[in-house]
Amino acid sequence: MNIVIYGLGIIGASLAAALKDAGHTVLGKNRSRGAIEYALAHQMIDKEAASYEGADAVFVALPPDATMKELDEGDFPECCIVCDICGVKEAVEKVVFSKPRKYRYVGTHPMAGKETSGILSASRDLYRGKNLVITRAAKTDEEALETVKRLACDAGFGYIVECTAREHDEKIALTSQLAHIVSNAYGKSPLALSVKGFTGGSFQDMTRVGGVDETLWTDLYFYDREPLLNELSDLIERLTEYKKALKEGDREEMQRLLREGRLAHDKFFSEK
Amino acid sequence: MNIVIYGLGIIGASLAAALKDAGHTVLGKNRSRGAIEYALAHQMIDKEAASYEGADAVFVALPPDATMKELDEGDFPECCIVCDICGVKEAVEKVVFSKPRKYRYVGTHPMAGKETSGILSASRDLYRGKNLVITRAAKTDEEALETVKRLACDAGFGYIVECTAREHDEKIALTSQLAHIVSNAYGKSPLALSVKGFTGGSFQDMTRVGGVDETLWTDLYFYDREPLLNELSDLIERLTEYKKALKEGDREEMQRLLREGRLAHDKFFSEK
Repeated sequence: MNIVIYGLGIIGASLAAALKDAGHTVLGKNRSRGAIEYALAHQMIDKEAASYEGADAVFVALPPDATMKELDEGDFPECCIVCDICGVKEAVEKVVFSKPRKYRYVGTHPMAGKETSGILSASRDLYRGKNLVITRAAKTDEEALETVKRLACDAGFGYIVECTAREHDEKIALTSQLAHIVSNAYGKSPLALSVKGFTGGSFQDMTRVGGVDETLWTDLYFYDREPLLNELSDLIERLTEYKKALKEGDREEMQRLLREGRLAHDKFFSEK
Repeated sequence: MNIVIYGLGIIGASLAAALKDAGHTVLGKNRSRGAIEYALAHQMIDKEAASYEGADAVFVALPPDATMKELDEGDFPECCIVCDICGVKEAVEKVVFSKPRKYRYVGTHPMAGKETSGILSASRDLYRGKNLVITRAAKTDEEALETVKRLACDAGFGYIVECTAREHDEKIALTSQLAHIVSNAYGKSPLALSVKGFTGGSFQDMTRVGGVDETLWTDLYFYDREPLLNELSDLIERLTEYKKALKEGDREEMQRLLREGRLAHDKFFSEK
């Protein structure tokens, strides 16, 4: 297939390289020249895209606002499959489905990334074995969706899950967005600067993804405001129960809270 | 050296095997027979210890309460080095230094573990490259402490840090205890049961250590109550700031909070 990837950051460039390796013709489009040259030099794309002309599929791999603008205004060919890769989906669907489109939209969200961004962090096996969420709506073209699933397999994804945009946004609020807030907040303890030698694995795990790009993540949080607010409020409430037990010296309650968490933990780990 | 390890769970048995591999004579003591037989069959100990007689060093690798009882009442030989491996240190020192002891106490806390416990989870390279915290007090015997450091190197630890019991307890409240509470609480979201396919690495990191043994960890939390209460209260306060920004639609404040966390994150990651 002829595929155009617009936005050669870590997500777009890794996807370009994986699809090119799978035998597709991949053209790259990027606002700055540097990434195009890097992608060409590293065989991540076949050439630069002058336009979307001739594309069977386009992946718009830009930040949320820029993605929505492109999906609204981009000059996509008739019947072309157009995918976004945003970490929020209801907001994107709202723009796409606000009027009839020539193109066929399929929402995707690759559940892979690194603590760093940009094309220098891209790798051709970033998606190997990873999860991909694909969103479907009443207006989704089934053939387009099936094609995207095949492309996902070509790119190396190990598990593909389909759901509505709302379901995506609710679950991602828990699995990704809340985790980044907790991690960001966790590392603000004044003691975090003097823990060398005092860490096993748990502190690293808590703080690993805390170094977020504040502009991108503020956008993501506000596009997923209600589900995220629910999860964050609930977590604060739960943490406050442990605090209360500790403050009041209530060992039985602490044991009860920990047991409840252990049982939940065992349950979702066994269902994974 | 002749070393006795009392308590052949994951921590004790892994230590026994590593020290035996390094050429020491290691005797095991355990309340149940099963672990002794397993340790003998897997060359983790040389033989069972009938008593502490002839021991140059003893590691008491029991849960906190049992450790303190043993340090208070155990029949250790004159001048024998006796170490605990507890995750709290002030409480242990308080017991040890409450009266003159024939033995020489050195507190240790191996910063290594797994999500599972018991001798079946033990491994001879559990401590390879890991951190060990050693606590020192005014009453600490310097020669004993130096010997324990050499034993730690023999066991494979990669980095050894010395500090007071108080300093240990404050930092561990952040690096370990709080992380286990957050992880335990995080996994209680009702959505946690239906996230298959919706996870990258951050959800796994947040929930990995959540399946805690509620009896052991309640003990640890209550022995480290004040430092832990401080860290937990502070984290709840910080999370509430993000919640407020989200609730009030204050994007600038959200960006400020995330930037603050990113800078803290970059700072301690660069100092690691």
